Amino acid sequence: MEQVCIGVDVGGTSVKMGMFRRDGHLLKKWEIPTRTQEHGAYILEDVAASVQAACEEAQAAGQQVIGVGMGVPGPVESDGHVEVCVNLGWKDRFPARELSGLLGGLPVFCGNDANVAALGEMWQGGGKGYKDIVMVTLGTGVGGGVIVDEKIVAGRHGLAGEIGHIHVRNGEKEACNCGGHGCLEQVASATGIAREARRSLAASDRPSVLRQAGEQVTAKDVLDAAKAGDALALEVMETVAHYLGLVLAQVALTADPEIFVIGGGVSKAGPFLIDQIRRPYEEFLVISPKRPLLGLATLGNDAGIYGAARMVLG
Amino acid sequence: MEQVCIGVDVGGTSVKMGMFRRDGHLLKKWEIPTRTQEHGAYILEDVAASVQAACEEAQAAGQQVIGVGMGVPGPVESDGHVEVCVNLGWKDRFPARELSGLLGGLPVFCGNDANVAALGEMWQGGGKGYKDIVMVTLGTGVGGGVIVDEKIVAGRHGLAGEIGHIHVRNGEKEACNCGGHGCLEQVASATGIAREARRSLAASDRPSVLRQAGEQVTAKDVLDAAKAGDALALEVMETVAHYLGLVLAQVALTADPEIFVIGGGVSKAGPFLIDQIRRPYEEFLVISPKRPLLGLATLGNDAGIYGAARMVLG
Repeated sequence: MEQVCIGVDVGGTSVKMGMFRRDGHLLKKWEIPTRTQEHGAYILEDVAASVQAACEEAQAAGQQVIGVGMGVPGPVESDGHVEVCVNLGWKDRFPARELSGLLGGLPVFCGNDANVAALGEMWQGGGKGYKDIVMVTLGTGVGGGVIVDEKIVAGRHGLAGEIGHIHVRNGEKEACNCGGHGCLEQVASATGIAREARRSLAASDRPSVLRQAGEQVTAKDVLDAAKAGDALALEVMETVAHYLGLVLAQVALTADPEIFVIGGGVSKAGPFLIDQIRRPYEEFLVISPKRPLLGLATLGNDAGIYGAARMVLG
Repeated sequence: MEQVCIGVDVGGTSVKMGMFRRDGHLLKKWEIPTRTQEHGAYILEDVAASVQAACEEAQAAGQQVIGVGMGVPGPVESDGHVEVCVNLGWKDRFPARELSGLLGGLPVFCGNDANVAALGEMWQGGGKGYKDIVMVTLGTGVGGGVIVDEKIVAGRHGLAGEIGHIHVRNGEKEACNCGGHGCLEQVASATGIAREARRSLAASDRPSVLRQAGEQVTAKDVLDAAKAGDALALEVMETVAHYLGLVLAQVALTADPEIFVIGGGVSKAGPFLIDQIRRPYEEFLVISPKRPLLGLATLGNDAGIYGAARMVLG
């Protein structure tokens, strides 16, 4: 009987699921809506029912589901305790233990979604072939995941890989979601890039293709304009890349992975973004000509189900 | 037969050695000079002879040496390769493999000395009882070691734990040993603290007890004066603590250990130093009320032999 595993990525809107062979081949993927009513009381039941159906289908096809991995949008303590998951309405839960109970004792593993996505990119994405990677997700916010020796470094207080909240800039007046001022996320997230552009536009009368978008300018607008050579957009991206390079150098001098894997919406700018980051990154790492590589994520929104399934394999 | 292990800490002047029980009890310690002549060609032979003698002595006492751990002052790659150890004169060596050969195949493990010291503090020092610690050594330079799940995170390019070279201050004109400008080490090492004080003294005519030492002012002078309430010395320590707190917060947002263990000569200032660091550290970690503890190292110069011996236990 072929052994397979299931990866579950619980988001605030939908739960993505995938069934995988041990070699990382995705057999099928599907999703169900996330019922956040009544403090998310039904989420695990819904997941259990969907997994149960998939297990029965697998068995009919001569496959055995050996376990389930699950990524959740919040900190997961080392004993599996989840104190709070704002987007799901959860408080004081043990998701792995509870889901395993609903599945008749099937092994279930649970991790923070950003960390789990990093594990997915290590397994079958931009970090394939490496054992030590740090993933950086540049989306609405800036997230991260640290993988050492093929395992998630979760940290003891749910802070590992929270590189979006590393302080990089003094004098920032707006507060970050975390309560800090001057976090990387405030500059390098999609939201942050757009705000940097708005500030640059407001600060002078210089011509820029970004003026037509005005207040509605997006990170994609900025990246497209920078690629096309727009001077103001290039300056914004220089600032963004400066702080990203600084933080990647800091992380290299702490965890020293083989490769940084850059993902999230902003990373769709591709090699242009990597090239922008490379110069400041290397300037802040003059200590050594050997340093972690910079690469791009490749799994997109599927990184979560890949990483969740990979947790089952230990 | 009781099983014991030997820890070896190879320094530029002397090689410290210790024999330990599995429970971490130090049975005896001794040292031999480091012969750095001819590119350090004799160092491993000298270590082997001394270890051999200790093994025979142990056997006569009914003890069996199950292995040797060794810390060396330079980066050790994951395959055990040491490209260069400036202080020893070594180039292109495999110290663990070579020493094991000289000891008739006895298991030998090798790591970077700062990382090994961190493991020692985790085992029997300021990090005892914890599995995830980051050690920060404030000495002539600033070193560090990252321990996750009781194991050294060595990194793939010898950069893990090199937190002394994290960039913290713009506009620094003097270059750091690493070639960078504005590294933590330039502010927070003993050398850095003394320089900050010299700069402060030169920048104004304000009265300070440090004026009598003048150009000869040391980090200890600054710490003593700050403890005694000297305003200028307190300002210097505020700057130092600001950057230390910033870097500890950055490391917490990457590796999130249970505790930071602060060692090295500067840490002799004790709880006063920890109190100074705590405020900026917490300010840069407003994201979470739960964060890594701050503590002091307790093993002093013996951390290296403890950690080296601990490597034998896996």
